[in-house]
Amino acid sequence: MPAISIKGLTMPESPIRKLVPFAEKAKSKGRHVFHLNIGQPDIKTPEVALKAIKETNISVLEYSHSAGFQSYRDGLVAYYKKMGISNLTSDDLIVTTGGSEAILFTLNSIADPDDEIIIPEPFYANYNGFGISCGVNVVPVTSRIVDEFALPAIEEFEKLITPKTKAIMICNPGNPTGYLYTKEELGKLRDLVLKHDLYLIADEVYREFAYDNKVHHSILNLDGLEENAIVIDSVSKRYSMCGARIGCVISRNKAVMATSMKFAQARLSPPTFAQIAAEAALSTGPEYFTEVKEEYVKRRDILVDGLNSIEGVFCPKPTGAFYAMAQLPVDNAERFAQWLLSTFEKDGKTVMLAPAEGFYATPGMGLNQVRLAYVLNQEDLIESVEIIKEALRQYPGTLL
Amino acid sequence: MPAISIKGLTMPESPIRKLVPFAEKAKSKGRHVFHLNIGQPDIKTPEVALKAIKETNISVLEYSHSAGFQSYRDGLVAYYKKMGISNLTSDDLIVTTGGSEAILFTLNSIADPDDEIIIPEPFYANYNGFGISCGVNVVPVTSRIVDEFALPAIEEFEKLITPKTKAIMICNPGNPTGYLYTKEELGKLRDLVLKHDLYLIADEVYREFAYDNKVHHSILNLDGLEENAIVIDSVSKRYSMCGARIGCVISRNKAVMATSMKFAQARLSPPTFAQIAAEAALSTGPEYFTEVKEEYVKRRDILVDGLNSIEGVFCPKPTGAFYAMAQLPVDNAERFAQWLLSTFEKDGKTVMLAPAEGFYATPGMGLNQVRLAYVLNQEDLIESVEIIKEALRQYPGTLL
Repeated sequence: MPAISIKGLTMPESPIRKLVPFAEKAKSKGRHVFHLNIGQPDIKTPEVALKAIKETNISVLEYSHSAGFQSYRDGLVAYYKKMGISNLTSDDLIVTTGGSEAILFTLNSIADPDDEIIIPEPFYANYNGFGISCGVNVVPVTSRIVDEFALPAIEEFEKLITPKTKAIMICNPGNPTGYLYTKEELGKLRDLVLKHDLYLIADEVYREFAYDNKVHHSILNLDGLEENAIVIDSVSKRYSMCGARIGCVISRNKAVMATSMKFAQARLSPPTFAQIAAEAALSTGPEYFTEVKEEYVKRRDILVDGLNSIEGVFCPKPTGAFYAMAQLPVDNAERFAQWLLSTFEKDGKTVMLAPAEGFYATPGMGLNQVRLAYVLNQEDLIESVEIIKEALRQYPGTLL
Repeated sequence: MPAISIKGLTMPESPIRKLVPFAEKAKSKGRHVFHLNIGQPDIKTPEVALKAIKETNISVLEYSHSAGFQSYRDGLVAYYKKMGISNLTSDDLIVTTGGSEAILFTLNSIADPDDEIIIPEPFYANYNGFGISCGVNVVPVTSRIVDEFALPAIEEFEKLITPKTKAIMICNPGNPTGYLYTKEELGKLRDLVLKHDLYLIADEVYREFAYDNKVHHSILNLDGLEENAIVIDSVSKRYSMCGARIGCVISRNKAVMATSMKFAQARLSPPTFAQIAAEAALSTGPEYFTEVKEEYVKRRDILVDGLNSIEGVFCPKPTGAFYAMAQLPVDNAERFAQWLLSTFEKDGKTVMLAPAEGFYATPGMGLNQVRLAYVLNQEDLIESVEIIKEALRQYPGTLL
């Protein structure tokens, strides 16, 4: 039998998926499982986007332009302007199949096999997979839960820079941390990449989700970074349109865009129906986001305050996205998450958590941490906190 | 300024796109351009697929399963059974974002950077781009226009096999050749890959388009090839749904599928709307294909018979897909194609051809060949042949 690639063998399984068989078993026992493990919001997709799809009048479902509909690209330029990111033209962005493809185009355009990109950990686990797909090595620099996952010291980055380093990559606000980088932190990253002639890649798909009157700062607004900044974006979370698979890659660096365009042409075009929906979604009013943000803030407070009221639990209050990382008083978070699904129940209900180990690249990190996505309604979150509290009382591996 | 990757620098531009600026100039002069250069059919998408989209009742546009909707995968199993490919289960296929992504998953699963796959040339030019994306080297084995692009002798393949060779890849029926491999040819490929423990990858996206009572043979039906055969598929051409971006990868090799699944999970899911349309399209009746095939046969005959009636032109009559390769009596086909757009006109009209050089990996091959897609209606094709005939009379580089 012919062999599987080393790439394929080393490709990690998603840390979220590993527990799926346990969840299926819990459900087969009739237990209700609250899914705090995945970033699939329950928020309604804007009506205007869904309506546009129903009103399509297509007779031949043709390829679109490889960079996406011109009208959608123009609409995106106007959207970014409204978000305070000015002076973009439609040539500075390419519509992609989800943020995922934007990352692939970026890595393929700036890095060769065995090159390195430095990413603060914990990070979105699929960055590993995209690195492996492109043959690029992800080098972690650890941010710490005690620091609420603030940017690690710049010296920590500098220690890791080698001739193979091509970029620093951040997710802002962060998945899985919910951390929102300050302007000062971003300024430090700018100085670092300029000093070492690196790219700065920012995954800004949670841009809208900044709370407590804090402001999201895009790396596209950092002075002097025009040739170095590459932004990954997506409509998945913004408009609760995860299934659309529409994202984009943005850079003012013309060589990066011309190269990304060659990869875009090879795959022909992004999906047409989803582009129609995403373009229509651009007219979503600010009241949609005000409502959604108010809802997320309430949920965050219920979850985070609830968790922090449990003895031995530490959960920094995030100011962005819809994730929180919590440190639990357990022997091992993955074992605890399995036990929650396989053994525990409270009134026939339990919760599914994402063990944090899979979000770290450094072995041994995050062993007593979990990621929680507050994508459930408020009552469910109140109940979920009660379940975790009771579970920590009963779990044989609780360290208190 | 930070550097572009070597990958990015060596990534070829699509041979079809290179002429686009010339076409734009022709159009700006008010000339009508008949597009024989692209495989975008003018055939109507089945009504049932478009209707399904209008009738969607979605409130949260969620991620689908990474392997695609279970109902769609079950539907695909039934479709393949109807096409004579039995004994597949839904675990043997993963729904992808176009055939493009199916190729990426396949190459990533079976080959590492610097590994090689052998492909008969001329081949679909984007195979090069997918090879570069994955770091895999495409090694061409030349099929010849005088042989109507039949499978090259097996000894020619064997000469090219090295320890780095991981697969032989074919497109059947072929883009750009329209060649339909015989059962005997496929049997020879089977023996070859079994002898050398290689994968056989077949891009079978034109399966339905076999003419003159010839039958398409899938490599999934070759005895003894269960662990070696990987099929790339797509709805783009079958249902004239190029803009959907829905394909699939199929193999009975469980390790290949488990590995592809890890790459599928990293990118989360294929597009939801397009999957709904593709699933609905499965109920397209046989009369749709009968009509479409009748139409393509008429077009092929107009184009190919017309071209062969021109002095010095040689165009083997293809029995599959909707492409033909023609050898022209010109100094250089790319120069001729440019001249057609920049200088020539017949009653204010001209044609756009795809120079064949970009479909060959061996330098110097195909310099006097073009690919023509017969995706225009019959009158336009009749006129296109007249334009080519007149152009060859006037072109300064005609060699007659």
